[in-house]
Amino acid sequence: MSNVYAVIMAGGAGTRFWPASRALRPKQLLPLAGAENETLLAATVRRLSPLVGEDRVVIVTGEHLAEATARAVPGVPASQILREPAPRNTAPCIAWANATIAALDPDAVVMVLPSDHFIGDEPGFQRVLARAVATAERGRVTTIGVVPSRPETGYGYIEVGDPLDPADAAGGAPRAVRRFVEKPDRARAESFVAAGPARYLWNAGMFFFRVRDMAALLERHLPGVASGVARMGDDPARVREVFPTLESVSIDHGVMEKAEGLAVVPGDFGWNDVGSWQSAWELAARDPSGNAAGADDVVIDAKNNLVRSLGSTKKTVALVGVNDLVVVETDDAILVIPRERAQDVRLVVDALKERGRTTLI
Amino acid sequence: MSNVYAVIMAGGAGTRFWPASRALRPKQLLPLAGAENETLLAATVRRLSPLVGEDRVVIVTGEHLAEATARAVPGVPASQILREPAPRNTAPCIAWANATIAALDPDAVVMVLPSDHFIGDEPGFQRVLARAVATAERGRVTTIGVVPSRPETGYGYIEVGDPLDPADAAGGAPRAVRRFVEKPDRARAESFVAAGPARYLWNAGMFFFRVRDMAALLERHLPGVASGVARMGDDPARVREVFPTLESVSIDHGVMEKAEGLAVVPGDFGWNDVGSWQSAWELAARDPSGNAAGADDVVIDAKNNLVRSLGSTKKTVALVGVNDLVVVETDDAILVIPRERAQDVRLVVDALKERGRTTLI
Repeated sequence: MSNVYAVIMAGGAGTRFWPASRALRPKQLLPLAGAENETLLAATVRRLSPLVGEDRVVIVTGEHLAEATARAVPGVPASQILREPAPRNTAPCIAWANATIAALDPDAVVMVLPSDHFIGDEPGFQRVLARAVATAERGRVTTIGVVPSRPETGYGYIEVGDPLDPADAAGGAPRAVRRFVEKPDRARAESFVAAGPARYLWNAGMFFFRVRDMAALLERHLPGVASGVARMGDDPARVREVFPTLESVSIDHGVMEKAEGLAVVPGDFGWNDVGSWQSAWELAARDPSGNAAGADDVVIDAKNNLVRSLGSTKKTVALVGVNDLVVVETDDAILVIPRERAQDVRLVVDALKERGRTTLI
Repeated sequence: MSNVYAVIMAGGAGTRFWPASRALRPKQLLPLAGAENETLLAATVRRLSPLVGEDRVVIVTGEHLAEATARAVPGVPASQILREPAPRNTAPCIAWANATIAALDPDAVVMVLPSDHFIGDEPGFQRVLARAVATAERGRVTTIGVVPSRPETGYGYIEVGDPLDPADAAGGAPRAVRRFVEKPDRARAESFVAAGPARYLWNAGMFFFRVRDMAALLERHLPGVASGVARMGDDPARVREVFPTLESVSIDHGVMEKAEGLAVVPGDFGWNDVGSWQSAWELAARDPSGNAAGADDVVIDAKNNLVRSLGSTKKTVALVGVNDLVVVETDDAILVIPRERAQDVRLVVDALKERGRTTLI
């Protein structure tokens, strides 16, 4: 069996968790779900431990985030925290990580994972990962397809084909990818969900492959990126020179949608992309009235609120007679917004930007 | 003309402005209206300055509040800040202050005023004060009746009689008090307002008298209080011994409702008793959308909110898509409550009391 490496994409900027998230403290570095004080990135690394030790984790992040990232996952070797001098989307990111791992072990199998998602059923997730790795070892570039729980229009979908092994057509068995489908409109999303998980799955941005298979795909579909990465190697000066010149393109568009023979492993493991404070509320421990608040907070005649006092001094938050609100406090800001408008946090960030309040963003 | 003294009753505890108000920082010591950073108590003293210098102001407060009170009005002589060892309502408070002033000047005229109200039209208020003082100098115990602006059920009313001087029946002329009316129900309050200010006025708790007239009234109607105050004098040890034993009774019930020959001066000077965060919002400077917030706050698609960041670090508060809320932050707490439920802040204080969170109340 090959050595398995994990590439964790941790370059996200993210304004959707303002005031908690900032340019220098993006979502993956916040404890937004699961255990208290565990960042999403640290949870991502911890969840892999039965399959991939920290010494085989490669993290790709922005140069400005590298120190905070290293602090969040102290067990990951510093040489395996790759610092992008500029964001170039996921294809150059994965190409660089793939080359880095190839230099360590040309026979390695790689799993690429986002750093900022939540997984409710970790053992279930680990079983799916193992299956995806085994499929990749057979020479199939593999993705995980999440069983849709609603007609979401914010995600891409994967149209599923036949089982790879006709003798194994159980629900979790690997299948061929027929095609990747872009974010659908509401009607199409509803038809996808109605068709069932044997036909359509969510694209959760997780990929599994042998380093040599990804290298071949990059050379074929993104030769400029492949040669750029080969040219820059791991020399910081050359990385700063070359990386920003690479084509900014996603691995989905640049490679996966063009590649053939892809496999998908269906999975249903309580996946959540933690896309907004609304998701944070969904994932949080809540009292019988639906409030996610601290034990010291006072909640009277109020339902379904999310309360987070995240400053260096924990404050007592009192809510009376308000429902469905997000109330978040940090050392320099307070946000009050209805849960259903959680996406509009970006309007606050835009307004702050416009006013030149750079310390707040 | 007699010397005029002012007695300012500043013993209020007040939970209605939690989290800003605390046991040791009650409403009158907060800058809840008018000029920024001016406490209601300081504003009360400042407003009197054309009629009563600080050296003739007597403030009655609780022993535990004495230091903070002295800091709020540094121009008032320390010997004129009377420290009640226990709250006994307004009659013992006024009796003590009256005796203190009688010892300084037996011919003085006294005005008794609450410490925690707002006055929109200060020159108008000063004219009414002068008229009330002049009426008191003639030997009439006098009160000010505020022209009602709505059928308020939370205040007592004064039923107005004939003008004192038949030749002066103008709107602002002093009139006889027919009787004091307790807080009415809604229907009666509406009938009072409909009858007009020549018939019913609000009792705003302001009284004017010669010290000798009040002394006589107290001896007649509250002889126990009068003799107790005479016995204790200004010796702190005896104050601590005697004052808590005095009958706890309001000046309204104990004296005014029983006295005869009282006068009332009608006034209409933007009076507001600053009874809750709702009042604070009414009095605050507001933007065209009705939001009272700081210049650095971010308010998007939100109307008629009151935002106050009162901690030692001023935070940026961002509101998106919320209306009619009160959002108040202090160094240790945050409150979010609809304006129309502002009175229910006491529920928070009750809950904190129940949980033994004494530092927060």
